[in-house]
Amino acid sequence: MTQHIVIVGGGFAGLFAARALKGGDFRVTLLDKHNFHTFQPLLYQVATGALATGDIATPYRQAFRKFPHVTVLMAKAMGIDPARKTVTHEQGEITYDHLFVASGLEHSYFGHDEWQEVSPPLKTLDHALEMRNRIFRAFEQAELTENAEERRKLLTFAVVGAGPTGVELAGQLATLVRYGMKNDFRRVNPADTRVVLVEAGGEVLPAMPPSLREAALRSLEKLGVEVRTGAKVEKITADTLIMRRDGQEDVLETATVLWGAGVKVGGFAAELVNATAAPTDRAGRVTVNADLSVPGHADIFILGDLASIEQDGKFLPGVAPVAIQTGEFAAKLLKARAKGEKDPVFRYKDRGSMAVIGLHHAVGDLGFMRLSGYPAWFIWALVHIMSLIVPEKRFRVFVQWGWKYITRASGDQLITR
Amino acid sequence: MTQHIVIVGGGFAGLFAARALKGGDFRVTLLDKHNFHTFQPLLYQVATGALATGDIATPYRQAFRKFPHVTVLMAKAMGIDPARKTVTHEQGEITYDHLFVASGLEHSYFGHDEWQEVSPPLKTLDHALEMRNRIFRAFEQAELTENAEERRKLLTFAVVGAGPTGVELAGQLATLVRYGMKNDFRRVNPADTRVVLVEAGGEVLPAMPPSLREAALRSLEKLGVEVRTGAKVEKITADTLIMRRDGQEDVLETATVLWGAGVKVGGFAAELVNATAAPTDRAGRVTVNADLSVPGHADIFILGDLASIEQDGKFLPGVAPVAIQTGEFAAKLLKARAKGEKDPVFRYKDRGSMAVIGLHHAVGDLGFMRLSGYPAWFIWALVHIMSLIVPEKRFRVFVQWGWKYITRASGDQLITR
Repeated sequence: MTQHIVIVGGGFAGLFAARALKGGDFRVTLLDKHNFHTFQPLLYQVATGALATGDIATPYRQAFRKFPHVTVLMAKAMGIDPARKTVTHEQGEITYDHLFVASGLEHSYFGHDEWQEVSPPLKTLDHALEMRNRIFRAFEQAELTENAEERRKLLTFAVVGAGPTGVELAGQLATLVRYGMKNDFRRVNPADTRVVLVEAGGEVLPAMPPSLREAALRSLEKLGVEVRTGAKVEKITADTLIMRRDGQEDVLETATVLWGAGVKVGGFAAELVNATAAPTDRAGRVTVNADLSVPGHADIFILGDLASIEQDGKFLPGVAPVAIQTGEFAAKLLKARAKGEKDPVFRYKDRGSMAVIGLHHAVGDLGFMRLSGYPAWFIWALVHIMSLIVPEKRFRVFVQWGWKYITRASGDQLITR
Repeated sequence: MTQHIVIVGGGFAGLFAARALKGGDFRVTLLDKHNFHTFQPLLYQVATGALATGDIATPYRQAFRKFPHVTVLMAKAMGIDPARKTVTHEQGEITYDHLFVASGLEHSYFGHDEWQEVSPPLKTLDHALEMRNRIFRAFEQAELTENAEERRKLLTFAVVGAGPTGVELAGQLATLVRYGMKNDFRRVNPADTRVVLVEAGGEVLPAMPPSLREAALRSLEKLGVEVRTGAKVEKITADTLIMRRDGQEDVLETATVLWGAGVKVGGFAAELVNATAAPTDRAGRVTVNADLSVPGHADIFILGDLASIEQDGKFLPGVAPVAIQTGEFAAKLLKARAKGEKDPVFRYKDRGSMAVIGLHHAVGDLGFMRLSGYPAWFIWALVHIMSLIVPEKRFRVFVQWGWKYITRASGDQLITR
């Protein structure tokens, strides 16, 4: 009998799980509050106007055109009743045989939600558009104002968090003001722009090996990014960022603080944890069984960022390759069980991680080798283009990057709404 | 002595005037509330997800990179004092030697501003995004609902106004549901979608010659668009459009009414008319002198849609070519005067008008010949690509259309914010 798999969330985990269930006796319903999949690793390129929204966002209807076993419903999942095997959403409820929870994590301000007003996060496409608006509005206002102090604040950008998001954002922003804005302004000199990267810990890219951290730091500094490690954010207002460093208060006057730190469990995921009494790790993520199911609930699987998975004594990071592999594993598992075969064993294959820092600079740890500089950048670009979900996006991003590479043309620096 | 020309509005008229002042002894300040020029004739393609925002919107900073005589300020012009020769904006005021008013017209609901809530207009890029959201949200909700009557309403789209905007929008929407959504839905059949084009007058494209009106009507009907002429809109609510036809009330149940009718003088233009006591025509547009200046104000010129210009017994239409030619004329005039030469005479050169109706269908009146069907469509595409403001946009639109033409891939059908 055809099994009904309900998937909550169409990020990498949900999308790859849904696709991988093709060919079995499965009917899939995917619920998502958006009508498109977001290629999250490139969000910062939209936020800085280097790529357009449509370059990295793929409508689910397009992504699943050739997957007739998948029905996509644009609806926010609200709650779950594990006993009745139902998920409720905005417009009704839906019953599952198996549930895949791939709803991911939300941005977090570490208990200071009031900061979001003045410091936008970067987890969704709407966030990226909000960031883009703020960045380019700051430059417009700097060109408009007659007040030198005001202009200085407007040309100072702070990025909070030196993980991949913060590092890539700061690097891209510094590249933009150095290379992408020549001859654009009459009163402002874009080269006067300060980009300050603020990190509470002691290192940039703490998940990378030391040699690459070093290379990343050098690349950032070469681009003119001021890196402040050991700086804990105490307060953010409309025109200041107040940090504490070595016990001292450090005040940065800035009109634009971009938030690249922190994630938390929220929304449907939080409901699920309550309803299933699932065990969680220190970060609130669900500690799953070896088959990725929730302890005590063999029909509910946690995929992607929300799953807390330990392997070789380390927790797997919240990155796209982990999400993809958990999604594909869950599909493989159900297929094996439907055929009465032995359960496959989940094991994450780490193909390395990379971060790009401005034009022609990246750092990459591919496991068998470590790269930095131009070769890393080239491989980074190649890997990202190949990873895009549909051929149309690969073609578009290739064309956009190619065109920009040749012409140094600026991208979609539009302030909308 | 260098003259300071202030231009309000960076549409076709303002942009071409600013560029054409290059090479003279002029300093130009262009004020606009947006940071980008919008290629208005293709807005309906963004509204229907066929093109991306960045394909038709060009940041002014990019458009004027090679025009160092132009300073662009992103600020809304608020008022004018002709005696002091100043324009006030959000953040201060600015003094001019000559003022070019190219702020265009606003959308109008003929005294029913409350309709905007339920029936978005299509004059700006934000409007196009709002329309895009509504169109694709209607399809998503149709897929989600279990209620057949609700689904029928959601799959009924009304377009008000059968001028170029309404006709192109209706044609594009009908093309989308017929060719662009195959295999996209599991519960909805996009071919069940109704597109109803509502026009108070007796004809579609009333400004076109009768033979082309006929051709346009045939093309629309072939695409399945229901054309209702002689239908005056009486009321629009969230799920009905009430019209009066031949004295009878005609109620259409529809969740999406798109507004393609009506323009009016508003905002800065209305302030200007008050402050200068400018004579206006029946539509409220400024009746200008032969040199496009405001009677009694030799230093204020009206360019583009806001100018009421009679030529050979007919008023010039509010289209891009008229706007461009008024802009170029005003620049030429000031250059001639600066050199002590005789005033040039403004005369609009009509190179024809075109409207596209779905895939491979268009109608065009080029003056010396009339075209319809495939040849008109081909010339339309060529003309529009060549008219885009910067090479980057030409390249992007060419690539997007080409790719879509070959693959039938859908475009940027994203629901953001």
